[in-house]
Order: sequence, then C-alpha cells, then structure tokens
Amino acid sequence: MGVWLAGKPLADRIKADVAKKAAEYKDRTGRTPGLAAVLVGDNKASQVYVRTKEKTSQQLGFASRILKLPADIDARALEERIRELNRDEDIDGILVQLPLPGHLDPWAAVAAIDPRKDVDGIHPVTLGRLVQNQDAFKTCTPQGVLELLKDFGVALEGKNVAVIGRSLIVGKPLAVMLTNENATVTVCHSKTRDLPGVVSRADIVVAAMGRPAFVTPDFVKEGAVVVDVGINSVTDARLAGELFGDDPARRKDLADKGYTLVGDVHPAVVAKAAALTPVPGGVGPLTVAALMKNTLEAFRRLKGLD
Amino acid sequence: MGVWLAGKPLADRIKADVAKKAAEYKDRTGRTPGLAAVLVGDNKASQVYVRTKEKTSQQLGFASRILKLPADIDARALEERIRELNRDEDIDGILVQLPLPGHLDPWAAVAAIDPRKDVDGIHPVTLGRLVQNQDAFKTCTPQGVLELLKDFGVALEGKNVAVIGRSLIVGKPLAVMLTNENATVTVCHSKTRDLPGVVSRADIVVAAMGRPAFVTPDFVKEGAVVVDVGINSVTDARLAGELFGDDPARRKDLADKGYTLVGDVHPAVVAKAAALTPVPGGVGPLTVAALMKNTLEAFRRLKGLD
Repeated sequence: MGVWLAGKPLADRIKADVAKKAAEYKDRTGRTPGLAAVLVGDNKASQVYVRTKEKTSQQLGFASRILKLPADIDARALEERIRELNRDEDIDGILVQLPLPGHLDPWAAVAAIDPRKDVDGIHPVTLGRLVQNQDAFKTCTPQGVLELLKDFGVALEGKNVAVIGRSLIVGKPLAVMLTNENATVTVCHSKTRDLPGVVSRADIVVAAMGRPAFVTPDFVKEGAVVVDVGINSVTDARLAGELFGDDPARRKDLADKGYTLVGDVHPAVVAKAAALTPVPGGVGPLTVAALMKNTLEAFRRLKGLD
Repeated sequence: MGVWLAGKPLADRIKADVAKKAAEYKDRTGRTPGLAAVLVGDNKASQVYVRTKEKTSQQLGFASRILKLPADIDARALEERIRELNRDEDIDGILVQLPLPGHLDPWAAVAAIDPRKDVDGIHPVTLGRLVQNQDAFKTCTPQGVLELLKDFGVALEGKNVAVIGRSLIVGKPLAVMLTNENATVTVCHSKTRDLPGVVSRADIVVAAMGRPAFVTPDFVKEGAVVVDVGINSVTDARLAGELFGDDPARRKDLADKGYTLVGDVHPAVVAKAAALTPVPGGVGPLTVAALMKNTLEAFRRLKGLD
C-alpha cells in the first residue's frame, strides 16, 4: 500500500518562503512584485483559476491585476494590451489564461509577452532555453511536479519516467526538464501502442492527458511513484462510488456541487504504487506556488535586486 | 540481413530541388539566397565543415560568405559581428560553426542571430516553436533523419523510437520533432540504466552520442531501423579490421589519411536490423541538404516571395 502524496504542505512552504522574501524586498526597496492575468471572455473554469491566482498573489503581498477583455477581442488588440503590460513597470509577471476563444491563436498571444515577464514559462524563448538547459522560468506545472518528487526524496537520475500526454504546458516541457535532470524519459500519448506495457516499465509515471481515471493498476509497476496532473469532473454518482467507495467528502461534493474531481489516475493505483498524488490537493497547489515563485524571480531580475 | 540506407541519393534530390527553386527565384527577382558561416578560431574539423557548406551553397547558386574571426575574439565583438549579418540584406541565413573556443558561450552567440535567419534551427525561439509544434526552421540533422526515414517509407506514428544522446543539435530537437510526428520517443543518455534493454524495445533507433561503434547487435531488435548520427575517427588498424573486415576502401582510408570514420553503431548491426545508415554517407549529406533547404526558405520569407 502506497502513500497519498499531497502537494499542499509543500506548496504552503514554498508560498511562505516567497511571501517572506517579498516582504524583505518591500522593506528594502518599497516595491512589491506585480502579477497581471489576462482573461479573455467568460470561460467559467478560467475565471476560477484566475481568481485563485489573484487571491494567492495578494496573500503573498504581491500587487495583482486582472485584465478582463471581451470574448470578441481581435488578435491585434489583444497583443497591444499585452504589450502595454510589457511596458508597465509595476508589472513583473504576465500570464494569459488559456484556453482563449477559438478565433485567437494562443501561441501568438503568449509570444507577445516579454520573455522576462513570462512567469507561466510557456513563451517560445523560455521553452527554447529549457531545451538548451539554460537558465529560464520553469513552466509552472512541470516545476511543481519536479519539486514534489524531490521533496518526496525521489532521485531522478537514471530513473525511467513515463510522461503520458504531450501538452505544451505539461507533457512537453516536463519531458525536457526531466531529461535535463538525467532521467530516461518516454513521452506517451494517444498514438502510443501498448500504453500499459510502456508505462508499466516506468519507475515514475506522470499522467497528464485529461482522461478520467484512465491509468489503472495494471498500467503501473509495483512500487512506482505516480503523479496525477489530470483534473476531470465526475457527475455520475455510480462512477464516483466505483472510484471513491463511500468517501463522505465525495458524496458531499456530489450533493453540494453536482460533481467531484478525479485525476487521470484511478485511485486504486495507490495500493500498488509507492505513492500517488491525490486529486484535488496534489499537483494543483504546486502549480500556483510555482507561478508565485517565478513572479518573485521576475521582479528580482527586472528590478536588479539580489 | 538489412539494407544499408545511404543518405546521399536523397540529399542529392533535395539539393537539386533547392537549386532549381533558387534559379527560378533568380530569374524572377534577380536575387539569390545568401548564407553566412561564422568561423571562430582554427578548429580543423570546423574548417572542413564550413568549407563543405560553402561549396554546396555555391553549387546550388547561393551567395556564400565565411566570416573568419580570431580565436581570441571576445563575446561582445562576436555578437556585434553577428548583428551586422542580421542587418545585412544580402544574407538570409547565418550559422555559427560550433564548437566555439572555450571562453565563448555558444548559446549566447546563437541567441544573437536573428531567428528569421537561424537556418541551423538552434536559436531558442526556433527550439521553443518546435516544442510548440509551430512553424519553425527544423534543426538540420534531425530534419535529415526525419526525411531519410520518410523517404525509406517508415511510418513514424505509434512507433517506439529510442534516441540515444541528448545534444542540443541532435537528440533534444529530434525527440521533440519525433513526438510531433506521433512517435513514442524515449531519450536515452549516459545515465540511462539498462541501455540495451531500453533500446532493444525500439522499432527505430537513432544513435547520436559520440561513442564509436557503441551500439552492438545485442542492443537492437530484429528488424529495427537504425540511424547512425555519430562520426568518429578510427586510427587503429586492428580495430578497423574488427569493424569493417578487409574492406579495401577502409584500408585505403587508413593508408592515405591515417584514419577511417565509424559511427556510433557497430556495422555488424546491419545483419540484424531492417536498415542501417552508413558512416560516412548516411545522415551527414542530409544535414547539409537541410541547411540549404532552410536557407532557401529564409530567403523566400525575408524577401516576401512565394
């Protein structure tokens, strides 16, 4: 029986450290880090994510700004607003909350961010510098995954790691960062043949493909460490019962909100793994903590502090 | 018994196509693509590579320029010379021949190239755009590997590919490009445990770690396609005999030049593989062809041609 590897305690330690440093900088310079979130349209999930980031940055003593833009904004106007934030000396970090409405190219918008303010770590220059193993903002969710593994005492060098999913904000940068850490990384995806066979040879599994409870115990080697990046809603009480038994917290979720969250990994995997991250409360809090850490770092560099 | 998969015939076809298009553009516009190579110091191998690129670009009707700089040039002066080439309208492609002398940071030099002229495909913006699966110059050697595999009729989707080596000009961008092609890619390196075990599960093996004849038949699955990117010198006649038997061309190499070339794959692998690229004459010619293709493309875009 493995352990549930929660991310929240580590995220709280990271945030406390960021808040302490921000306070020290404020004492010395009178300035605080500024984070701007660009929110286009009214995607409900995006609103929740942006609000969480705003709340956290305020808790840490940052200045926080949400730039709400209409769903029908055109690409040129969006990029002009981003460039205004690039020029704004009160803003050290800029994030464009994804997804954008379908008529906008998300990567053109991200590319408009000054790379020195790319605290999400997804600008092409940032990704290219990660490939080159040069100093760069580490993409938030992969950074959270790496910090969680290190904090749990998992040595990455020489380990076989299966990354399931090749998204631009998780799978691909994570694969690069794990390779830089001397792990042997296999990137799996929807076209991978014999996925259970490939994944079951891995010492560490990171699931990030967005398919609820898809990774079942037969995928996983006995004693593997499994990190679940997926966040999916389950609305069906029968399915929730199959996944979580009669867990009262899950029953309450369903009763109160009409859904409960499940990752890409079936909770039964914890019995076979050495450790499995829970959903919610696993990688999620670490993603936000990484954003705050990157914003502090952007502030430190832009203001020439040490 | 597999086949020897030579790159030269395909490279010749690619170059002929590039030359034809360059001639058409010249007829229409009076202009020719211009390629500048920056050569710092007097590394013998670098001189040979740069001369090959110059000769090929001239054969294809390009304007070619070699900028020879002293070995003790400082980083600022080097970057200033690169920026002059960025501004030069006669130059469409710029390459900095690596390695640079030890006191210079190669990635700072490469980052000084205008990404629109990055025909080697190793600028951080280019690599980042490859990670994002956006339109970008494809890094030359990986591009050559992919074109060779496609030309040989190897479908990449769903194939297990082992890339041995994680260099910035071969292994890492190749892994990204193969993942974009829907292959399941494992990047192996010096810290990988049980390398033969990992590699022997691959349908396609790309060896690019710079260890002469390191990949022996026990590494390779029966019927795998093996691409050998390594180029190593063998000066020892006994070792050459062990690798190549009494091949008269190899004996002549040793007698005339004092060395013969071997890749990272033992030639005996051809007996077990479906195909193996020879060294020399495998991937090498395709790397140069890719550089020419990228330079034509840079010219086409910078001059606004279609």
